[in-house]
Order: sequence, then C-alpha cells, then structure tokens
Amino acid sequence: MTEATMTVEELVVDATRAARAASRSMARSTAEQRTAALRAIATSIEDRATEIEAANSLDLAQADERGVTGPMRDRLRLQGQAISDLAAAVREVAEQVDPLGGFEEEVVRPNGLKVGRVRIPIGVVAMIYESRPNVTADAAALCLKAGNAIVLRGGSEALHSNRALADAIRAGLAASDLPVEAVQLIPVPDRAAVDILLQQEDDVDLVIPRGGEGLIRAVTAKSRIPVLQHYKGVCHVFLDASAPLDRASAIVRNAKVQRPGVCNALETLLVHAESAEALLPPIAEALLGDGVELRVCPSAAAILDAAGVSGAIVAATDDDWGEEYLDLILSVRVVDDLEAALDHIAEHSSSHTEAIVTDDDASARAFVQAVQSSTVLVNASTRFADGGQLGLGAEIGISTSKLHAFGPMGARELTTRKFVVLGEGQTRS
Amino acid sequence: MTEATMTVEELVVDATRAARAASRSMARSTAEQRTAALRAIATSIEDRATEIEAANSLDLAQADERGVTGPMRDRLRLQGQAISDLAAAVREVAEQVDPLGGFEEEVVRPNGLKVGRVRIPIGVVAMIYESRPNVTADAAALCLKAGNAIVLRGGSEALHSNRALADAIRAGLAASDLPVEAVQLIPVPDRAAVDILLQQEDDVDLVIPRGGEGLIRAVTAKSRIPVLQHYKGVCHVFLDASAPLDRASAIVRNAKVQRPGVCNALETLLVHAESAEALLPPIAEALLGDGVELRVCPSAAAILDAAGVSGAIVAATDDDWGEEYLDLILSVRVVDDLEAALDHIAEHSSSHTEAIVTDDDASARAFVQAVQSSTVLVNASTRFADGGQLGLGAEIGISTSKLHAFGPMGARELTTRKFVVLGEGQTRS
Repeated sequence: MTEATMTVEELVVDATRAARAASRSMARSTAEQRTAALRAIATSIEDRATEIEAANSLDLAQADERGVTGPMRDRLRLQGQAISDLAAAVREVAEQVDPLGGFEEEVVRPNGLKVGRVRIPIGVVAMIYESRPNVTADAAALCLKAGNAIVLRGGSEALHSNRALADAIRAGLAASDLPVEAVQLIPVPDRAAVDILLQQEDDVDLVIPRGGEGLIRAVTAKSRIPVLQHYKGVCHVFLDASAPLDRASAIVRNAKVQRPGVCNALETLLVHAESAEALLPPIAEALLGDGVELRVCPSAAAILDAAGVSGAIVAATDDDWGEEYLDLILSVRVVDDLEAALDHIAEHSSSHTEAIVTDDDASARAFVQAVQSSTVLVNASTRFADGGQLGLGAEIGISTSKLHAFGPMGARELTTRKFVVLGEGQTRS
Repeated sequence: MTEATMTVEELVVDATRAARAASRSMARSTAEQRTAALRAIATSIEDRATEIEAANSLDLAQADERGVTGPMRDRLRLQGQAISDLAAAVREVAEQVDPLGGFEEEVVRPNGLKVGRVRIPIGVVAMIYESRPNVTADAAALCLKAGNAIVLRGGSEALHSNRALADAIRAGLAASDLPVEAVQLIPVPDRAAVDILLQQEDDVDLVIPRGGEGLIRAVTAKSRIPVLQHYKGVCHVFLDASAPLDRASAIVRNAKVQRPGVCNALETLLVHAESAEALLPPIAEALLGDGVELRVCPSAAAILDAAGVSGAIVAATDDDWGEEYLDLILSVRVVDDLEAALDHIAEHSSSHTEAIVTDDDASARAFVQAVQSSTVLVNASTRFADGGQLGLGAEIGISTSKLHAFGPMGARELTTRKFVVLGEGQTRS
C-alpha cells in the first residue's frame, strides 16, 4: 500500500506505530550515537538547501496567492541564511550535555536494596504546530537528543517546506546508527489527521502544541494524551516603593519595546503608590517617545495629568488587565502596596513571567515567594524568560502549566525518570 | 446561601475557588507551619475518633443494605485501630523532609544574572477516588505537606466517613496557621459534580483519579485539567538463562503470592528457553502448592508435562498476556532469549514494574536499559515497587504515565519548580 492509496487514519496510525517501534531503539541508543546523528542531520540540511529552498518557494507562492503578507509570510520564509542558521541550531543541540542515564538520588535501603533514578526518554512526542517550518528541525533535534521518537504535524501552509525538511532529517538519520523511523511527518493537510493523532494514546506519550491560543485550546480539549501547554504571556513588572528611576526605566522600556511581539514582553506595569509620582511621569514620557500607547488606571491618569505628560494615553478598561497585546501597548496601574500588586498578579497573570524592580530585600523575597509564575525576576527584564538566556540551550517552548515542566523547556524536559532497584534476591515480608 | 440551597455547580465552583484562594496562602507558608498543621490534624483525627466511627457505621450500614460484602466492604471499614493508624500516617508525613524551596541548579550567566530553580507547590490538586475513606486523610496530608490546597471527591458509598474525616482535618487546620479552606470536600453524592469539577481549569492545576480503570479512563476522557493516571500493573518477572533456582523461585513466589490483589504483584512469568527445563518444573510445583493457577504457553506446557508436573494448569490464550489478574493466577511463557522477553514486555507491559532474575551483568544492564517501566528491578521482587519500600515515605499513588511523575509519587511529586532570576538591572540587547 502506498501513501497515495492510504486513508488519513491509516497514515496517522502507521506513523505513530512506526514512531513507537523506533522509540524502543532510541531508548537503547548511546549519547555518542545521538550526537553523531544530530551532526549528520545538520550536514544533511545544508546539503539539501536547494531542495528546501525550492519547496519553501512553493509554500511562499501559495501564501502569495492567498494574499498572506507581513509577519505571517515572514514566519513561513526559509531561504538562504535561514537554512544555514537552522543547521547551526541542530549542531548546537548535538553538542549539548546528554540528558539521559545517571543513577540519581541513590539510596541503600535497610534490606540492602540499592534504589536510584535513571533518566529516560518520554518515548514518542507529537508536535502540532503552525506556520514556522523551522520548528520541524528544532523540535526533531531536541526530541532526538533526549532519546525520543517524534511525530510532526505542521500547518498545511508550510507542508512543502516541512516535507523537504523531514526528508533532509531522515536522510541524516539514515547516515547514522539511529532508526530513520524515529522522525515521522504526517504528510497530508487534512484536519482530521490531528483528531486521529490525538487518539493514539497507546503509541504517543506526549503532545506539544505550538501556535496560537486557539490551536492549544483545541488540542487540549480533544487529546486523550497528556498535553504540555504553552499559553500566552501576560507579563507584569512591579515597581516597588524603593525602585530607582534609572533601573526601573531601563527594565520597563527593554521589557516592552525591545521585541513587543513575543510572549515574554511586558504587558502590564504595576507601580507602588509611594513611588508613582516620582517614577511614572518620566517612564511614561520615555515610553510615549518609543511609540508606546498607554492604557492607564484613574490614579495613573491623574499623576500623568498633574505632571503634564500627554500623548497616546487612554483610560484602561477591565479587559486591559488580562490582555496580551504583543504590540506597542502597555497597561499601567498604580497599586497601594506590594500585597495589592501580588493580588493583581494572582488574578490576571498567565503564570508566564513577572518581575519586580526594588532596592528592598524583604520586598524581593516576598515577591519571589508569592508569585507562582514559571519565571520570577528581581531587577531584570522579563525578556530573559527564554531557554537560551537562562542557560538551557535551545527550547522546544515555554510551558505555562505546572505539570512536568514549568517555564522554558530544553532537552531535559523531554525526559522522565524511572526507578531502578538492584537486589540480591530480596523478597518482601 | 447555605449548602442546602446551592446547586451542585455552585457547590463545586465554591469549593474550587476557595481552594484556589487558600493555595495562595499555602504557597507562602513555612515548613514549620506545614509540619505543625499536620501534627494538629493527626491529633484532631484521634480526638474525633468516636464521630468518625459513628459516621463510618452509617456507611457500613448502607453497604449492608445494598448487600456489599467481602473486600469491597472491608475497604470501606474505618473503626478502632484503623483510625489510630490513619493519624499515625498523617504524623509520619508531618515529620518528612520538607519538599519546597531551595535554589537548585544555580548558575551565573555571562551577564551576571543568577539563575536558579525553586521548588513550589503545584497549587490546587483535585483527588477523585472510590471506596477507601482513608484516602481522604492520606491525600490531604501529602498535598498539604507539599504546600497545595486539595479538593476531595470521594465515592458516595463513603460519604459520611469522608465528611467526618474532612471535618476532623479542617478542625486541625483551624488550630494551625494554615487556612481551613485549603481542604475542600465536595459534600454531595451527585455524579454531575465530577464533570463540573473537571472543567474548573482556572482553579484546579492537577487531577489525580484513584480507583478502578473505568474511573481513571472516564476522568482522563472528560478532564480539561492535566490528569496523573494510575492504571493497572501487568508486572513481569523474567528468569534469565543464568537465573539460580533458589533465587528465582523465592522472587517469583513472593511477587505472585504474598499479596496477589495489589498492582505490583506479578502477573506474567517469562522464562529463558535455556533455563526453562531446569527452573519451570520446581517453580511451578511450588506455585501450584501455593494455590496458584498457571496459564501456560505450549512450550511451558510441554516442559511441565515432560517433568510430570500436574494440577491447575491450563493453556494460555492471547488475552492472558495483557491480563491483570489481581488473584492467584499466573501466566507463563517460555521465550527464546532476553530480546524475546524484551519484545514481550514492550508489547504487553502496563509500564508499571518489571524484574529480571539473573547472574549475568550484561543481561541485567540490557534489561535495565531497555525496559521503560516506572520501576525496573534486578534480582528483587516486584512487590518493592511502592513509595514506602523505595524510601519516598507515604505515596499518593503510582503513576503509569511518564509525564511529571513516573512510578510511586510522594510529597515531592506534588510540587513543581519555577525559575528565579536575580539581577542588578540587566536588560536584553
């Protein structure tokens, strides 16, 4: 039976079964074999740059036909240097410390049993993503590094690019000791494929959706397989009573303006009432100068008005406090004190990233203890909430659910641990 | 509005909201406060033993009316010594090492940022369980130890007992620095309450079902909240070519006979073809003497027949290989070699627990590396796959899904980690 004559269900079941079988060999592979395979994949991507560019051009032409422009079209583009960068990223994952093995937390029990925990692959990871075809190579590299097989399901708008990349990856695997079947791409655009994929709980251990909130919610609602969610980032910076102006201004502007379209950008600024008159006017002036629209609470409005600050300032509505603008817009609220800031964050945060600017150790400690977001920063920009910046290397995403992995996820977050017990014939009495 | 006039939905939403609010105080509690509260809960359970016994007697009387007998009725019984044991178990959790806090894996980044991981509570845990009312106290104690709030939803057959226990626990909390609202019991038997509970994704972070496979599958299918599954244990012992008879026999008999009704009991025995003639007849004789029924493959049947072993021996069907008997029944299969044993386990195991009996280091290593179950034992009984036996202290269950926690789960498995970043004004360039 060839792909052309198979039903969507057969294609998906075939892919997940093949991945499950390959995951058994992957679990027995050595660190050296995994590193060598990733190097071979990087080389193969470089060798096939022409084919990848040609495939990507087909996707771009289709996007043009559909009138896709701007950031959407940019995300789809994979040409020239972008392909070399992709190969370099795979090579970087290859050279990372191996996440598997060990015999952690070893204890010898009173009956002489040696008990330890050994880090193992999760098994089969299904990645469901949109647009950006480089996810195909990034996700495959991280999953293989951690000893997993992967089933890739990219968006139909990038199908040609994803196919060409998967072919390059599999050619790299073919030149290695790892099984080619460890990387599977669902090769058809049918939407039904995702629903079928989410029912293969015997052959898939984990689903990672990556894309808009709609995609993530739909996958979570339908999946019988555990899902690691990457929801939005409604990130806060709180300026404490003791926050020095220069530091506060630098952090707020960096967090808001440096790259407003990403999930670790600042969305809501909270200012302690005691420092608001000193801090708010100059910081607002600077942000307005950066082209930021401010949506402010009544207290902030009064302070800015009294200080004679004018420009793109509007009154915030209740909806603003939960908004992920991903744009040059900032909501601003004056709060009575640290506890009021913590209340606001508990109510409106997306558990992604929050920061405090303060010179007071007690405030910093209280903020760090009370805020239950995946990254909590003291006197640093929210933009550091990123696997590379935190020292994890490449990341497969940023988890905002607390199960398994919370925050940026690297190769180690694609593993789990089993108990290994070494005995000499012990039985239980 | 009183409980009596509230709808089921209002009751459930009220309970989960109260738990969420309490979880904020719990996250800021100290280790000393959590220990003191658990001691107070243990004392409160002892102080209210009479009320708990009376409530349990009502449940037992209802069970008698419905004709419930045997193990089902035994599981429901909570009288006399069982209540003292429950208080002692809570006291044991109180004295465990605190699982929260720390600043693990600290690194200083090139820009001077200090990055570490701090262990925090998951938040709000919902426990959905059947029959055994002691889960009410065990689960509450472990969740509180780990700084979580808990929503308890026990079976309707134990509703009076669960209410009395929850009252005792809350009285203990009232005498402590922790919020009483950190322990919530859904106080009505309506089945709709579970469905509503599984939709409160904003207020519940984790669902742990504990009970039969039907309950677990239903919860997993309906939940919008991450679920930690505790499926069945189809545990295997593999007797290698080099397995010495005395050790093999002791481990197999212990694993099968000592307590056949639990999830870490042996269900399928695999025997290397080279050792089958020497090992199978004496081990089968011993098991038959223990009252075990054997369901055997054709090779095993031929070996037992040739050796003149007779008794409760029947031919195994294909269904036997996936069966969790929880009874004095054992399926037996002769396999060509270690690889064939690994293939059988990969196909039929429930990822719970498997053991090898061997004198060969290479076989032991290969088995430990290839078997991806939550507990893998060398020369020891499968019955050791248990939180207490492995040194975790009390366990809230044994996870057979690889996400977050795999294998026995203690208090630490009810926590997660956040990134904490300490800066001096760093911004991203």
